[in-house]
Amino acid sequence: MKIIIVGATGTMGKHLAGAFKKDHEIISVGSRSGDIQADISSPASIENLFRQSGSFDALICTAGPSHVGSWKTLTDKEFRRGIDGKLMGQVNLVLIGQHHINPKGSFTLITGALAQEPVLNFANASAANGAVEAFVRAAAIELENGVRINAVSPTVLEASPQYFPFFPGEIPVTLKQLEWGFRKSVFGANTGQVIKLH
Amino acid sequence: MKIIIVGATGTMGKHLAGAFKKDHEIISVGSRSGDIQADISSPASIENLFRQSGSFDALICTAGPSHVGSWKTLTDKEFRRGIDGKLMGQVNLVLIGQHHINPKGSFTLITGALAQEPVLNFANASAANGAVEAFVRAAAIELENGVRINAVSPTVLEASPQYFPFFPGEIPVTLKQLEWGFRKSVFGANTGQVIKLH
Repeated sequence: MKIIIVGATGTMGKHLAGAFKKDHEIISVGSRSGDIQADISSPASIENLFRQSGSFDALICTAGPSHVGSWKTLTDKEFRRGIDGKLMGQVNLVLIGQHHINPKGSFTLITGALAQEPVLNFANASAANGAVEAFVRAAAIELENGVRINAVSPTVLEASPQYFPFFPGEIPVTLKQLEWGFRKSVFGANTGQVIKLH
Repeated sequence: MKIIIVGATGTMGKHLAGAFKKDHEIISVGSRSGDIQADISSPASIENLFRQSGSFDALICTAGPSHVGSWKTLTDKEFRRGIDGKLMGQVNLVLIGQHHINPKGSFTLITGALAQEPVLNFANASAANGAVEAFVRAAAIELENGVRINAVSPTVLEASPQYFPFFPGEIPVTLKQLEWGFRKSVFGANTGQVIKLH
């Protein structure tokens, strides 16, 4: 299977690339490194990504920039980071990628527990996640030729302890658990699902 | 109670203004008419709205523009209609409005059944609704001074039969049912809730 991993140089993407490369052809995509460089907040950059990758069987996205910070001073500009990044970046990967994906291929996006369980300072990620989850349900009834779409929803990662203070009492997800979530989407048959790891 | 109704000249807003004006002071806001004109896709226009309205006890938003159309040709630009309108329009009403709302005041936003139950051609509204619902949960734990926030989620309105063909088998919501949903949010004590009318 030819699998594009967007965010392949981040904590999650690196693990998934390592886990899947034994049995599959991996195209790693990062903002500044990887087989192909792309800025997912730019539709033109996404078009260029697929021109370089050619057709593919699965696209995994673990890239989801958003704004973290004080609620009281939160501005439209700050909020746009998650809207242009985690939300529209992933939406555009699907809207543009649908014209390059092979029949029976799959898209697997990244969301997170914040959609249902907010914590202070992360309202931007909550909103982006909620949008991604509803988008996945809507896209699943539109995509043709057996193409599927799901989202994986981790909570805070065990591999990212710098975030623990923001998530009091949250039991962290291991990278192995995250991998199982992506395996369920990429190698399973479900579509329109949010695979919750929390 | 001083209640700002954004979208007061639309089908939903007109009904709510009529229902609430007997017992409350209503400030109607429309894009081209009403007591105050505002374009909610512009933060500057929202700032101007609150400068004109002054402090208030409740803000109701029934304005949520989004793009309806074919999935296969859906572009970033078309998708931005719901992102800038129904999503960021409502987010900015809260981010900016929090500095003008009275203690124990409330925000009530509009979402819709499409967040959970997609129909063809409405992926943009689905995504915007999902974001609004997660945003409401996140904002509820941030807002201080007893300020509350909820969202009301109707399905297709009985008063808008032109949409029936897009929602096969969907039992329409009456404007009276919609009013009850908004009453629950504005005059009740809940916060962080999506009040489902479907």
